[in-house]
Amino acid sequence: MTALGSAARPEPQSFERVLSSMCTEPHPAAREAATHFLATNPGDPDTYPAVAALEREVVSMLGDVVDHQDPTGYVATGGTEANIQAVRAARNLAATDDPNVVGPESLHFSFQKAADVLDVDLRLAPVDEDYRADVDAIADRIDDDTVLVVGIAGTTEYGRVDPIPALSDVARDADARFHVDAAWGGFALPFTDEQWNFAHADIDTMTIDPHKLGQAAIPAGGFIATDERTLDALAVDTPYLESTGQATLTGTRSGAGVASAHAALSAQWPDGYRENYETGMNLATWFAEEMRVRGYDVVSPHHPIVAVDIPTGDFEALTEAGWRLARTSAGELRVVMMPHVTRDSLAGFLADVDDLASSGEER
Amino acid sequence: MTALGSAARPEPQSFERVLSSMCTEPHPAAREAATHFLATNPGDPDTYPAVAALEREVVSMLGDVVDHQDPTGYVATGGTEANIQAVRAARNLAATDDPNVVGPESLHFSFQKAADVLDVDLRLAPVDEDYRADVDAIADRIDDDTVLVVGIAGTTEYGRVDPIPALSDVARDADARFHVDAAWGGFALPFTDEQWNFAHADIDTMTIDPHKLGQAAIPAGGFIATDERTLDALAVDTPYLESTGQATLTGTRSGAGVASAHAALSAQWPDGYRENYETGMNLATWFAEEMRVRGYDVVSPHHPIVAVDIPTGDFEALTEAGWRLARTSAGELRVVMMPHVTRDSLAGFLADVDDLASSGEER
Repeated sequence: MTALGSAARPEPQSFERVLSSMCTEPHPAAREAATHFLATNPGDPDTYPAVAALEREVVSMLGDVVDHQDPTGYVATGGTEANIQAVRAARNLAATDDPNVVGPESLHFSFQKAADVLDVDLRLAPVDEDYRADVDAIADRIDDDTVLVVGIAGTTEYGRVDPIPALSDVARDADARFHVDAAWGGFALPFTDEQWNFAHADIDTMTIDPHKLGQAAIPAGGFIATDERTLDALAVDTPYLESTGQATLTGTRSGAGVASAHAALSAQWPDGYRENYETGMNLATWFAEEMRVRGYDVVSPHHPIVAVDIPTGDFEALTEAGWRLARTSAGELRVVMMPHVTRDSLAGFLADVDDLASSGEER
Repeated sequence: MTALGSAARPEPQSFERVLSSMCTEPHPAAREAATHFLATNPGDPDTYPAVAALEREVVSMLGDVVDHQDPTGYVATGGTEANIQAVRAARNLAATDDPNVVGPESLHFSFQKAADVLDVDLRLAPVDEDYRADVDAIADRIDDDTVLVVGIAGTTEYGRVDPIPALSDVARDADARFHVDAAWGGFALPFTDEQWNFAHADIDTMTIDPHKLGQAAIPAGGFIATDERTLDALAVDTPYLESTGQATLTGTRSGAGVASAHAALSAQWPDGYRENYETGMNLATWFAEEMRVRGYDVVSPHHPIVAVDIPTGDFEALTEAGWRLARTSAGELRVVMMPHVTRDSLAGFLADVDDLASSGEER
């Protein structure tokens, strides 16, 4: 039996106990813009020209964030699509029929998806003791069939930034393209001294997601490229549409996401995002120390992500208590200091951690 | 210079003169649900369980629409993703390393995109004189490397339904999988005597888009499969998420789309959709006749899409006048009778057509 006709509808949960997500509550301006543009489709720019114009502006605005004067690209569904497209462009532009992609083992799992979808070989290299790509290990895995080298500017698990300029050099030496995945980090790193963007290294494509730290509404990913050649390598013909050629992975697309990215960037770049970064970094430093004094091993946060080694039983008990938590592949608790995460919320979490410890002692 | 910081924002255009789109204004209940669920991500079901539960219900509801008792699948970004996934599942489940897909030349261009992305060969067969797949021509193109046969239930250009049961038989004879693209037709055909769904033929996967005639908000596509084996063939592992395995093409996904599909189906299935279909069909019949009496060649509408052979100059003049129009690949004007299209709007269009004719006579 289905729920057809049922009027009951659960409320979406609040963000108060969400410590696991790289998404967050949209900025109020982003929420309003998303609602206003709900019925538009930037995938059909001749029918929906207003949102298509906004999308061109978003790409330009993202260029300011990633320090590129004249970027091309589009608003994707998210980081997964942008990463797939980076691999697809590299594969399509290369001559080999046995293409491979080389990156650190800290790559987001969307590259596994890209490898399956696009039928390319994914070669992962170990990271160094600080969870960053090891340039020599990357270089060792590159050969004549390498079409793309990938570096990460803000890893999903530990928020680390790979040595982007050195990885770019390695890619260029091998005549391979170079992609930077800044899906999460892109709206944090402009306020740091990390070397990660188009001004710091020779980069072909980048992923940077407005719907993560950019505070846009889902779906608003960013796919940024240095030249039109990249988009041309992705384009298919579009009969029935008055526009010619479509480089996106999807067809019909969300105008809500585009408009909300535009609104969030207009409202928040750069000062609002700087403030978010500083707040998040302060929370990360404080929370890491609070866990350390409780005797837990903590991976030092470079950016607003904290990983803590806690026993599986504790993780499960905290999940039972209503906390939305995530784990690294090594099993550590991972807390992402998104804009919705507050000191009060973390204090509540720490109180629950303390309750666990005292009830453990009583047992 | 970019528009950063600019407060100016264009209004999205109204749907009054949109005759080209297969999307439409969301149902009021769908719009409200989309707004309510804007900040949720069904791609992370353990963090956002409420919207994940809604998604399971939507798949079940779509099962009612396509006459499948126990469907599996998910809410995709749209028809393009669902079509790509159907090809991907077929490719991944087959043994050949030189896979091909066979379908009629009337296939949506998303299959060209799927062929490029997935590196499969797309073999197109001519259609018959009524724009439907020619079963013999399809059969001629099938060989041992054919992993998928595709039929369309409501073509993008003429709204035609291919001979689905016969195509299914041809696919089965060749040990190939069978996919039906009902992206547009799926919410129209339940109210016709067409043979198109899971009760009429042996079908592995189907595309049916709530954000087209289903009146959900973008992005809400539907990917429906008969068994878990299909989703297993698409799944990649998901470290950092508490769920295991992700079969979708994208990662982070729109909770707005899922919730709005749920709301639209709850409000409109079946009577609201039946009414839309009957209204659209009446408009199509009337509009086709009005164009015929004006001397234009019209492709008889089987479903609420009308194609009319008009001169390029007239098409351009009508576009100049503010009409959002689309063309078939043969160059005909194509009008899709979506729920937002009214008799008044079409009467205005016909008046503009008449003005063109009289100004042409005056010249």
